Amino acid sequence: MARDPHDKPIAALVAPDILELLEASPGDIAAETEELHPADLAAVAEMIPRESVKALLAALPKERAADVLEYLDEELRTEVLEEIPTEQAAELVSQMTPDDRTDVLEEIDEQVAEDIVSELSAEAREETERLLKFEPDTAGGLMTTEFVSVSGEITVDQALDAVRSLARSGRKEAMYAIYATDREGRLAGVLSLRELLAAQPGAKISDIAWTEVASVTPNADRKEVADTTAKYDLIAVPVVSESGHLMGVVTVDDVIDALQDEQTEDIQKLGGLEALDEPYTSMTFWGMIRKRAVWLCLLFIGELLTASAMQHYEDELRRALVLSLFIPLIVSSGGNSGSQATSLIIRAMALGELKLRDWWRVAMRELPTGLMLGAILGTLGVARVLLWQMTGFWDYGPHYLLLSITVGVAVLGVVTFGSLIGSMLPFALRRFGLDPASASAPFVATLVDVTGLVIYFFVALMLLSGTLL
Amino acid sequence: MARDPHDKPIAALVAPDILELLEASPGDIAAETEELHPADLAAVAEMIPRESVKALLAALPKERAADVLEYLDEELRTEVLEEIPTEQAAELVSQMTPDDRTDVLEEIDEQVAEDIVSELSAEAREETERLLKFEPDTAGGLMTTEFVSVSGEITVDQALDAVRSLARSGRKEAMYAIYATDREGRLAGVLSLRELLAAQPGAKISDIAWTEVASVTPNADRKEVADTTAKYDLIAVPVVSESGHLMGVVTVDDVIDALQDEQTEDIQKLGGLEALDEPYTSMTFWGMIRKRAVWLCLLFIGELLTASAMQHYEDELRRALVLSLFIPLIVSSGGNSGSQATSLIIRAMALGELKLRDWWRVAMRELPTGLMLGAILGTLGVARVLLWQMTGFWDYGPHYLLLSITVGVAVLGVVTFGSLIGSMLPFALRRFGLDPASASAPFVATLVDVTGLVIYFFVALMLLSGTLL
Repeated sequence: MARDPHDKPIAALVAPDILELLEASPGDIAAETEELHPADLAAVAEMIPRESVKALLAALPKERAADVLEYLDEELRTEVLEEIPTEQAAELVSQMTPDDRTDVLEEIDEQVAEDIVSELSAEAREETERLLKFEPDTAGGLMTTEFVSVSGEITVDQALDAVRSLARSGRKEAMYAIYATDREGRLAGVLSLRELLAAQPGAKISDIAWTEVASVTPNADRKEVADTTAKYDLIAVPVVSESGHLMGVVTVDDVIDALQDEQTEDIQKLGGLEALDEPYTSMTFWGMIRKRAVWLCLLFIGELLTASAMQHYEDELRRALVLSLFIPLIVSSGGNSGSQATSLIIRAMALGELKLRDWWRVAMRELPTGLMLGAILGTLGVARVLLWQMTGFWDYGPHYLLLSITVGVAVLGVVTFGSLIGSMLPFALRRFGLDPASASAPFVATLVDVTGLVIYFFVALMLLSGTLL
Repeated sequence: MARDPHDKPIAALVAPDILELLEASPGDIAAETEELHPADLAAVAEMIPRESVKALLAALPKERAADVLEYLDEELRTEVLEEIPTEQAAELVSQMTPDDRTDVLEEIDEQVAEDIVSELSAEAREETERLLKFEPDTAGGLMTTEFVSVSGEITVDQALDAVRSLARSGRKEAMYAIYATDREGRLAGVLSLRELLAAQPGAKISDIAWTEVASVTPNADRKEVADTTAKYDLIAVPVVSESGHLMGVVTVDDVIDALQDEQTEDIQKLGGLEALDEPYTSMTFWGMIRKRAVWLCLLFIGELLTASAMQHYEDELRRALVLSLFIPLIVSSGGNSGSQATSLIIRAMALGELKLRDWWRVAMRELPTGLMLGAILGTLGVARVLLWQMTGFWDYGPHYLLLSITVGVAVLGVVTFGSLIGSMLPFALRRFGLDPASASAPFVATLVDVTGLVIYFFVALMLLSGTLL
C-alpha cells in the first residue's frame, strides 16, 4: 500500500504557506486561495476555529462558498449550517446542484432543514422537496435534476448552441451526456458531448443519437446505479420514470461515492456488525456499542449451543480428556475455511460473477476444494500429534496413533463442512431476499463451531470406541 | 439488495429478439445490433459458439469490433485473441485506446502479445511498449496517452477548434478535461470542457485555466489514483512526471474498475486468503487451492498453539472438567469482537479517516468499547449458567455461582482483549510497511483464541482456587 494521499492533502499544493495562511484573517484566506480546489480550501477550513470557518464562508464569493461547504467534513458542515442565519444558509445551499443540496439538507436537523428550504426560491424549493422524498441510497436520491436534454428534432448546431448557453449560464448541469427526447418528451436517445462536437453541424440529433440508452429507475439502489455505470463506462446514468421520461441523472462522482459507501457497508457486514453509516471517527460511544452489540449478542447466543454440545459429550470428555486439547484447533479450522469461502462468494456475487442459479455449481466446486484443503490441514494435524509424541514433548497415551488419525479426519471433515457452509450461506441469504453480505465471517464461524464439535466427537466415537472411549 | 442488473443485461434492451438473434448468422447479428451498446453486444457474443464470436468480430466495422472485444469476458477475449490471425488481432487492438490496448495485451500469452505488438504501426508500437513497462496497478499502467493538451498561449476559440477537430478525427481522447502547458511543455493548468465552452472566445487559456492541478505520479498505486479522483470529483486524473510533464490521464471509468479491484482484494484479504486477482469463476482448481491453502496453513500452525495452551492446563481441566464446556464459547466471543474491530479499522484506514498517528486515540476508544461489549456478553454468559442451573437443565455442581462468575469475567476479559488486538493489528501492520488489510478476521480470531484460553484459565485459577481447582 503506498502512502495515503490524504496524509498530505494541502501540503502538496501550498506547502510552505500553509502555516502562514492559518494565521491569516478569513478575508485574507479567501483572497490568497483563489486558485485552490474547493476540496483543499475545505481542508484548510477544517484546521481553523469554527467561528473563522463561518467568517471564511461569508468572505468567499457565494458560489465558491457553496463549493467549499460541500467538501467540508460532514460534522463541521452540519454544525456550520445549523449555526449560521437561515437566510445565509439558504443562499449557500441554493448555489449547490440539486443533488448536493439534498444530500446536505438530509444530514442536518430536520427543523433547520425545513427552515432553510422555506427560504429558497419557489422553483428550488419545489425541486428540493421533490428530491428529498427519495431514499438517499436510491437513484432518485442520488440524481441531479440539472442535465441537458434537447428535442431530437433539432440540429447538431442548435444543440451545441444550447449546450454553450447553458454552460455560460453558470448553472452546473451534467453536460457530458446530451439526452434527446421524442415529441412526447420521453427519453429517446443519448449522445456524448464528444460525439456532438464531432458531428456534422446540420445533422438532426435523432438521426445520430444512440437509441438504446442504459438507464435506471428512480428506485434502483445505489449498487445497481454503480453496476450500470461500470458496465457501460458511463459518466452519467439517466434516471427514467415508468412512463419513459427522464427525471434526472446520477453523475459519476456521486457513483464513486456510492460505490465507496456500498463497499464500506459490505466490509463492515463481513466483519460481523451492522453498517455504521457514518465515519468511525464521528460515531458516538453508544452509537458504536449499538451497532456492534446486537450482532455480538446474537452470535454469542448462537455460540451458547457449543456449551450445550460440549455438555452432551461430557461423558466422552471425562473418559478421554485428551480429546479436549484439540477442540479450539479443530473448530477454528472450520471457521477459517468458512470465512474464506464466504468472502469469496459475497464478493463474486457483488461483482455479478455469480448469480443465485450458480449455487449448485459453486457447491460442486467447494466440495473438492474443501476436501483438498481439509486433507492438507488434516495432515498437518496428524503430524503435530505424532511429532510431539515421538520427540517426547507430550505423551498422548498408548493410543496416540488412533488419536492423531481422529484429529486428522476431524479437521478434514470440519474444513470441508466449513467451506461448503461458508459458500452456501450467501446463496441462502439471497434466496430469502436478504443481503448476501450479511453472511459475516463471525456468523459462519459460529455456525461451524457448533457443527465442528459434533463432527469431531462423531469421528472420535467412530475411531476410538473400544480404545479411548 | 435489489435485483442484480447483470441478471438481465440484454433482456432489458432487446428482450424478445434475443433468442432469434442468437440463431442468426454472425453477419446478421452485426447488422441487427447496430444500436446496441458494445457491452451488450459483448454479452450476446458470450452466448454464441466461439467460432461465431470470431466471425462476428470479423463482420463488424473494425472500431466496433474493438469495442466489443474490450467488453468481452477476459477468458473469452484471451482465447479469441490467441486464436485469430496475428494481423487481425493487431488491427483490432490498434483501434483501442492505448490504455485498453495495454490491458488486453497484458492478459494474453506473452509470445502472442509480442507478435501482435510487432504488427502495430511504429507509433502505436512504441507507445504500447512504453505503457507495458508500467505495473498494471499503477497510474502509469492505468493511464491513456490520448488526452487534450494545448499551449496556454492560445485563445479559447483556438482551443475549442482543436478539441472539435480531435473529436472529428475519430480518435478517442479523454477530452472532458483540457490541459494547458507552459512554454517548456510542462503542465501548467486545467480547464473542464464545460468551462472552455462557457469562456469568452478571445480569452487566453492561461488566464482562465486553474493553475493548481491535482495530479498523481506514474508510480502512484491505483488506490491513490482512486482517492485523488474521489477527493476532487475528477473525471480524469493527470499523470505527471517528475519534471512536470503530462504523461497521460487515467479516465474515471478505469478509476471505477480500479476501485472495484482494490475492494475485491480488501474483502478477500479480510476473509483470510490471498487476493485471487481473477474472477472466482475463472480460477483453476489448483490456483484456488494455492490462494487459500497458504493462509489456512499459517493460521492452522498458529492455532496449534491452542493445543499447547490446553496441554499446559490439562491438570486444571482434569480437576474441573466443567471448565472445558465453555472453552469454544469464550474463545469465539473474542474472535468475533476482534473481527468487528479489525474490519472497522481497516475500512476507516482505506477511506483515510484514520492515519497511523491515530492509533492511541483508537486504542483509548476501543478499550471502553470492548469493556462495555464484554460486560454485556459476560452478563449473558453468567445468565446462561445460572439459568441452566436453576431450571435443572444441568448441574454445574456446588460451586456453580463461582463458575458463572468465572465465565462472565473471562468473557469480559476476552472481548476487551479481542477488541483491542483487532483494532491495533491493522496499525501494527501499517507501521511495518505491510498492508493493513492483511489483518484478516481469521488472523485476529487465531491470535485471540490462544490468548483467550490463557485469560480464561487465569481467571479460573484466580476465582476457583480452593474450591473447584
